[in-house]
This record gives sequence, structure tokens and C-alpha cells, in this order.
Amino acid sequence: MTTSLGATATAASSASAEPGPSTPAPADELGVRAARIRSAELEEQIRTDPRRFRVSTGDRPTGRLHLGHYFGTLHNRVRLQDLGTELFVVIADYQVLTDRDVADDLPGHVEELVLDHLAAGVDPARSTIFTHSAIPALNQLLLPFLSLVSVSELGRNPTVKDEIAHSRQAAVSGLMFTYPAHQAADILFCKANLVPVGQDQLPHLELTRVIARRLNHRYGSGGVPVLPEPEALLSAAPLLLGTDGTKMSKSRGNAIALAASADETARLIRGAKTDSERHISYEPATRPEVSGLVLLTALCLGRDPRQVADDIGGAGAAALKAAATEAVNEYLAPLRARRAMYARDRGHVRQVLREGNERASAIAETTLNEVRAAMKTLY
Amino acid sequence: MTTSLGATATAASSASAEPGPSTPAPADELGVRAARIRSAELEEQIRTDPRRFRVSTGDRPTGRLHLGHYFGTLHNRVRLQDLGTELFVVIADYQVLTDRDVADDLPGHVEELVLDHLAAGVDPARSTIFTHSAIPALNQLLLPFLSLVSVSELGRNPTVKDEIAHSRQAAVSGLMFTYPAHQAADILFCKANLVPVGQDQLPHLELTRVIARRLNHRYGSGGVPVLPEPEALLSAAPLLLGTDGTKMSKSRGNAIALAASADETARLIRGAKTDSERHISYEPATRPEVSGLVLLTALCLGRDPRQVADDIGGAGAAALKAAATEAVNEYLAPLRARRAMYARDRGHVRQVLREGNERASAIAETTLNEVRAAMKTLY
Repeated sequence: MTTSLGATATAASSASAEPGPSTPAPADELGVRAARIRSAELEEQIRTDPRRFRVSTGDRPTGRLHLGHYFGTLHNRVRLQDLGTELFVVIADYQVLTDRDVADDLPGHVEELVLDHLAAGVDPARSTIFTHSAIPALNQLLLPFLSLVSVSELGRNPTVKDEIAHSRQAAVSGLMFTYPAHQAADILFCKANLVPVGQDQLPHLELTRVIARRLNHRYGSGGVPVLPEPEALLSAAPLLLGTDGTKMSKSRGNAIALAASADETARLIRGAKTDSERHISYEPATRPEVSGLVLLTALCLGRDPRQVADDIGGAGAAALKAAATEAVNEYLAPLRARRAMYARDRGHVRQVLREGNERASAIAETTLNEVRAAMKTLY
Repeated sequence: MTTSLGATATAASSASAEPGPSTPAPADELGVRAARIRSAELEEQIRTDPRRFRVSTGDRPTGRLHLGHYFGTLHNRVRLQDLGTELFVVIADYQVLTDRDVADDLPGHVEELVLDHLAAGVDPARSTIFTHSAIPALNQLLLPFLSLVSVSELGRNPTVKDEIAHSRQAAVSGLMFTYPAHQAADILFCKANLVPVGQDQLPHLELTRVIARRLNHRYGSGGVPVLPEPEALLSAAPLLLGTDGTKMSKSRGNAIALAASADETARLIRGAKTDSERHISYEPATRPEVSGLVLLTALCLGRDPRQVADDIGGAGAAALKAAATEAVNEYLAPLRARRAMYARDRGHVRQVLREGNERASAIAETTLNEVRAAMKTLY
């Protein structure tokens, strides 16, 4: 979820919103190029002075994460944490309230999400994982934020627009319609100044920046901003497709969960689609199924997909599948071992969340008090 | 403000939304009649068992209250408190954020509103006066509430509809558009079961009832409601017009503030419009200016307006004005004395608000926790 926070609005399409081989619309190309240049500068600054950066990311708790999530966002989160930035992971549980299947076991879904993050290497001693439903001060920011945006601006947000396209505007819930303001609260409550996004998601961050700018203009004094305008950090992650060559999604049965066993992984890859050409090559546009397996293998091996394809060459699909299975299982083995260890200690998982919520609450209360002081609503 | 909370959406029109001599649209007549019958039953229950009732009322802090507010809502609040119900008065400060004139001195406006309530007899030992910006747990209820209503339902709310009619839907702020959900939070956070309204305001409460009903249906278990469906208590207050025969409003200069001095009051009534007919009568439909003065006098004397008019009869407008001035100043004298006393002790006013906010916070946190438990979002 939380589109600009690194994943997409619906878990089912999470991996697909990551930047991939698809060409952006010409109108956006200049913006994407500018964002790419700026992101390179930001990466350089992160390397030299990571403590300047507070990174906001997050997911809707819709189930276990899969390899599309992992290589799309999770891996990058851990990378940014390990470089020394301060990482916040919001579990956007209120955003799934209208999704019955999920809402019926929210605690379970939330715990799985925490487990996946711990397994991937998010370190709760340095990073903060929290559920936004536990942070009233964060949610209160919604009210001043909503006063700064118009109905038409809310409706223009890509996530809201998608939702309107899927039903009718009139039928969209008030929660979904105000989503861009919730997203702004999820980012700005901790004064995050950096939000990792895929290039398709660049427009998603825009209203958060507008809200921060307007709030500063309206309530800031002496040129001192109340809240930062967060910047987008374009992710370099390539698009990882599912085992059938379409976007990876749990509901399509083409996704390899981080938590899957080695056997399940082998079975899923064995059943993966390939094509009739024996020689293996990396051509995402024309051979999506084969190229997906090549890319997966390459990502797990930390190699260039073209080289991986060349190495297999005429050995064909069976060899590719064997290589992919081995690469994935080997790559994920330590992650899966950590996950299994944490899964045996649910008390610890809940403790991580409790501490994350406490930390996020304290920060949200400080920010809310600053906003209320700037608005002169402290009596 | 907070239309269904006893006053209207804009302070300028507060008095006018009270039930008056105007006939409701035929389509609503049945609903109004049913509400009137139900309100009579409720009044009877209040007399026999007042502790069953928690009453939610409120105002937007847009300035000092005038006699239109007083006889329209404030007097009724004190009456309900003195009958033994538990009274909550929300000062809806977030609802005036987009009103620059007001927002620039919110603390001042909030203090004036507290002063008017104390002067009128609201007793902070029994009743709770609070600003909703100080209660994050109240505001967080907005998120589940917004998930239970659609964009079209929000747009159908009379206050939102008015706002859309005044500009265009696209230009309306997100805060105004979501107003019905804020109102539901202002009422339901304390599980109020009674909301005093004028008959024009009956539809305003409807979405709050819908939200409570849907939340109970969706998240209640074993038939136990999570939140009560509050009932409307129709106010019997007649419509008090300003000194020019149009609706009483500070911005029209036709309003007598509760805080006005006896001399200011005399001056305002001296300048009041009358008509060319010497004989004084009470005929609101055909003689609004004269009838307004008669009604004001009658309300202050606790008499029937027809008798007041008959007593003055041929003595004419000058005698009517003299009677009105004397009645108002005499009636308000103790209220004004209390107001002046409290106004000298701003520390006390702020203390009343602080204690009200603390009490409202504790209640809101309890309610939010119950709602979160029902939604299974306590981890």
C-alpha cells in the first residue's frame, strides 16, 4: 500500500508499481529525468551524511510479502537503514478497513508484516515499525491537512483516481477519498524528508509536498518551516514479474512468498511458464516469462541478468529453473531462518510493534504540538 | 457551527437555523412531526431519569454569542444541565481554520465562548467544555467513520451541500467536505445519546446515526452496540430576529451580544426598525420587525408574546422599545455580572478549558480503545 511509501495502493499490485522496463508517458519524462538526477545527488548525500535523512516507507497489511515486494522495496529499506538513515515503516492498517478478507484478521496480517521486516534485516533498535491506528496524534494531523487541500486536489491523486475509475466517485468511501491527506500524515508526522518511490509513483508524493508547503506558508513564522517538504528517492529496482510472466501477486498464485519453504519455492518455479525457444536470453519486452526467471536468478546472485542468461544459454528452461530455484533458496535461506526464529517468539514480535508504536507516538505528539502551536490552537 | 449540535454551520446565521415560524417543506413534515412526538417522550424521560442522558452540543468559536444564540441554544443547554443530564459543549476550533479573520485570534475567540457559557450558567463541575483540537483520540475516530460513508453521502449533508452551493464542489476544502464525519466524532466520542437541534437541523444528525449504526453492525458482537445512535431533541425555541427584522447576526450589526453593556443594548434597541402602524401586535409573518421586539421582550419576561403586545397596544413603538430595553437589561444583568467577574480572571477560564479537555480526553481514549478493540486493531 501507501503508494508513495514504497509499495502500491493495493497489495495485489505492489510489485507492478515499481519502476520497470515500461516507458513513462512522454509528458512525465522530464519530471522523471529530473527526479533521477536529484535522486543520484541524494544517494551521494546519504553516503556522506546519512543522519540528515529520515526515511518514510510503509505497507498495507494485506498478507505475507513476496519476492516482488522484497526486491521492489524491502531490500531498499534495509539498505537505507544500513547506510545510517533513520527508517520509519508505517503499517497502514486503517487503509485496509474496507477490505473484509484482510480486516477480519488484522492482528495476524500485521504480525506477518513485522516478521517479514525483521527477517529482511530491519533492525528495531535503529528503525521504527508501527501501526498508524495506534498513533492518534499522527491521525489528528489529518484535520489541518484537510483544511489545506480542495476536493478536486484529492480527486486528482493517482490512487484516488484509480479507485474512482474502478467504481464511481460517489461510491468511493470517505476514507479512500481522503487518502492523500492520510498519506501526508503518515509521512510528515515524523518530519521524514525522504520517501523512496518507483517512478510511476512520483506524482503520489506531490500532494504531501503541497500540504507541507501550504502549512509552512500559512502558519510558519520568520521563514522557519513547520514541516519539511519530503523529497522522492527514485528506486533503481527493476520490475520483477511472477512465475507466469504477469505482475507478481499473491492472488494470482504466481508469487514466491519470503516465508515460503525451499520445497514450495522449487514447486512454484518448476510450474513457472517459459516459452518454446530453447536458448535462454534476457529480453524482458519480448520474452517476459523467461526473462522474469533470469532476472530473479540474477537478483539473488547479485549478477547481471544478461550474463546469467548467457551462462545458461542452450541448456534451456529446465536448467534455468534449476538455477533460479537454487539461487532463490540460497539467497533467502538466512532470511527464512531469521523469520522462523522470530515466528516462534510472537511475544517478541508484539514487543517490537509496541516499542515502535511508543516511539512513533512520542514523535507524533511533538510534531502535533508544534503544528498546533504554529496554528495558535494551544490554549 | 456544528449544525446538529445546536448552532449552525456559520456563526453568522446561527440564530436563523433555530426552529421558527417558517413552515418546513411538506416532504419533511412527517419527519418533523415524528421528531416532535419523540422529543416530548424524551423530555418526559429527562424529567424522570436525567442521568440516562449525555447531551452533545457545540459551537464554532467565531466570536461572542448574542441573544439569538442565547435563546436559540445556550438557554436550553443550561436547562438540560440543570435537569441533571450530562452536558458536553465542544468548541469546534478546527472548523474555523479556513476562516482567516477568526483563525488569527483563535485563543481569544475560544475564551469568549467559554466566558459566554460560564455566564449563562454552564457549570464546569457538572458539564464539560472542551476544544476538539485538544483531543487526538476524538479526531482519530474520523478514520473508521470515514470508512463507513461514501463520497456521495458526505456531499448530501446539508452543511456540505450549502458550502458546495456557495462555491463549487471542486473548490470546497477536504475539511469541509468531511464535516459530517467530524460532527459524528464530536458527538460519538463521548457516546452522547441526545443532541438538541432545531427542526431545520434534523437531517444534519442523520449521518451520525448512520455511522453509529454501520459501525455497530460491522464491528459489534453479540448484538451489543459499540456506540449509541444519538437521538434528536427538538428545541422549542422560537426564532429570534435581529433589530432590523432579519436574522440576527453579528456581521449585520443587528445582534445584541450577551456581553453588551446596558447602554449598548439601549442604543441598539433604540435604533431597531419598526413599522408605520402605531398599534403594537404580535404578527411574525406580516410584522417581523415589531414582532421581533415583542418576542425578545416576552422571552426575557417569560411571558406570552401576544400578551406583551396587548399590554403595550396603542402606546406604540417607543413604549415597545422602552419595554424591550428594560426587559433585556434586567434579564441579562446577573448573567452580565457573572461574565464580568469571570472575564477578570482569565486564568480561571483557561483552567476550565484545561479541565474540560482533560475530561474529554479521558473519555475519548476510552471510546477509541473500545472502537479499536471492536475493530480488532489493538495489537
